Amino acid sequence: MFNKLCVIGVGLIGGSIATAARANGLAQTIVGFGRLDDIENLQLAKELNVIDEFYTDIETAIVDADFVIIATPVAATENVLKLLKSFWKTNTIYSDVGSTKGNVIEAAQKVFDCVPPNFIPAHPIAGAENSGVSAALVDLFVNKRLILTPVENTSSEALQKTQQFWEKIGALVSIMDVHQHDKILAATSHLPHILAFSLVDMLGQRDEQEAIFKYAAGGFRDFTRIASSDPTMWTAICEANKIEILQLLEQFKAELTTVQNLIETDDYTKLFELFSYAKMARERFLNQI
Amino acid sequence: MFNKLCVIGVGLIGGSIATAARANGLAQTIVGFGRLDDIENLQLAKELNVIDEFYTDIETAIVDADFVIIATPVAATENVLKLLKSFWKTNTIYSDVGSTKGNVIEAAQKVFDCVPPNFIPAHPIAGAENSGVSAALVDLFVNKRLILTPVENTSSEALQKTQQFWEKIGALVSIMDVHQHDKILAATSHLPHILAFSLVDMLGQRDEQEAIFKYAAGGFRDFTRIASSDPTMWTAICEANKIEILQLLEQFKAELTTVQNLIETDDYTKLFELFSYAKMARERFLNQI
Repeated sequence: MFNKLCVIGVGLIGGSIATAARANGLAQTIVGFGRLDDIENLQLAKELNVIDEFYTDIETAIVDADFVIIATPVAATENVLKLLKSFWKTNTIYSDVGSTKGNVIEAAQKVFDCVPPNFIPAHPIAGAENSGVSAALVDLFVNKRLILTPVENTSSEALQKTQQFWEKIGALVSIMDVHQHDKILAATSHLPHILAFSLVDMLGQRDEQEAIFKYAAGGFRDFTRIASSDPTMWTAICEANKIEILQLLEQFKAELTTVQNLIETDDYTKLFELFSYAKMARERFLNQI
Repeated sequence: MFNKLCVIGVGLIGGSIATAARANGLAQTIVGFGRLDDIENLQLAKELNVIDEFYTDIETAIVDADFVIIATPVAATENVLKLLKSFWKTNTIYSDVGSTKGNVIEAAQKVFDCVPPNFIPAHPIAGAENSGVSAALVDLFVNKRLILTPVENTSSEALQKTQQFWEKIGALVSIMDVHQHDKILAATSHLPHILAFSLVDMLGQRDEQEAIFKYAAGGFRDFTRIASSDPTMWTAICEANKIEILQLLEQFKAELTTVQNLIETDDYTKLFELFSYAKMARERFLNQI
């Protein structure tokens, strides 16, 4: 499918893409690029045969590459695009994996004035608690959603080829408007993470006084699992998707006020209906995955 | 330890108590009491040797019992106490398993004028997603917290014997004031459940329009797991622990306002600190279980 795939940032996501591309015969050569301080991880990636070679010099890394995937933390995208700019080729497809897309498109606009037609913003909705290339999985994207958010002048050929690449490694590809992507992800991912961080922040301070955590059980462990996520990444996501997140936080506070009012006025019939609706809605969600 | 244990309500909790009591040789005879419409579950409990016999008549069920555990849904406690009142014996120990305790003590006060010295309010912090006696586990309480909330006139002998019973089936027993119990559980259990129900209620309505759930991933599944809990039980808990829950909802809305303000004013240093504190606090929690 491709002669040379260059993965910028060979961590969990980048490493899994490389591994899956190799397993499915999608690139003849697969190379990795990383910063000097990432050299041990890059060496490991080569030892594990995830990549054929690695480089810390961008020009050498991308020479002859016909597919370049930026798999760094989303906050680094703008700097990576700046690095790539001098060597940008119209026949190469460039893509990324950032979990917010409005800011990635803004970064591309900033660096190139307008988003290059051969840059395809992509977001694989997959991840794991671990990080680094040693956590890479060949099937990380199998049956997982992947969203492509093309802009007006995106090349339909580059879009199609990126879609085919992801489908061949098992992803379920959707194409949608960038704002729709950021709105949906704010709801299904960003808000839950912020709620989990907020709850554990609030209760953690109380735990220091009263040792309440020792009476918390399995439900609390599941509910707060995402509060163990990377604070750097989640701060960057809050910045990147600020508007949508602020709106949703306001909406969620209004939802909590509704629940408060039901309890305050002893309207347990309506509270039961709300809980029952939620239980049913979650079953609908479970039946989709 | 006991001649005859009578379990009122032989579901997941009651069945697990009976199974663990038998496995540890804590009662010579173990019987179950249930309502007529629970007869199939009671028959199954007998077939599985969880109980020796079952009854739908309370007088017969508790005759000669020296330990009676109410393991019905917490909302039924008052009615069960009314049933037991006519046959109440001063030499028998009575206990329960309700996840709110203020309302259980109120119910006992209402039925008996003052809480009987041989009634020991108890809350095993354990559960599972399944219900019914077929889901009972011999080790459901092993290394799980159990809180006893005695009142002023509680018999220290009955309290001690109840504590010993639970310790012998593996629970880590704490004794605390009923208000402290209800405050702690509001924080570590009731608030998280309400947040999960509220989030899925809010997003479920949007999912009906926009099918957003299909883009939700593993983090969302974990975070919302407790929104699949029993709406009847959770409505009853909101009623039973109304005051504490309302206070915590207010406090959590204030926490969300803090987070909103940090995002709104682009104070990502403080936001990062908040997320980092939460991640660290969750690690403290994980190291305790």
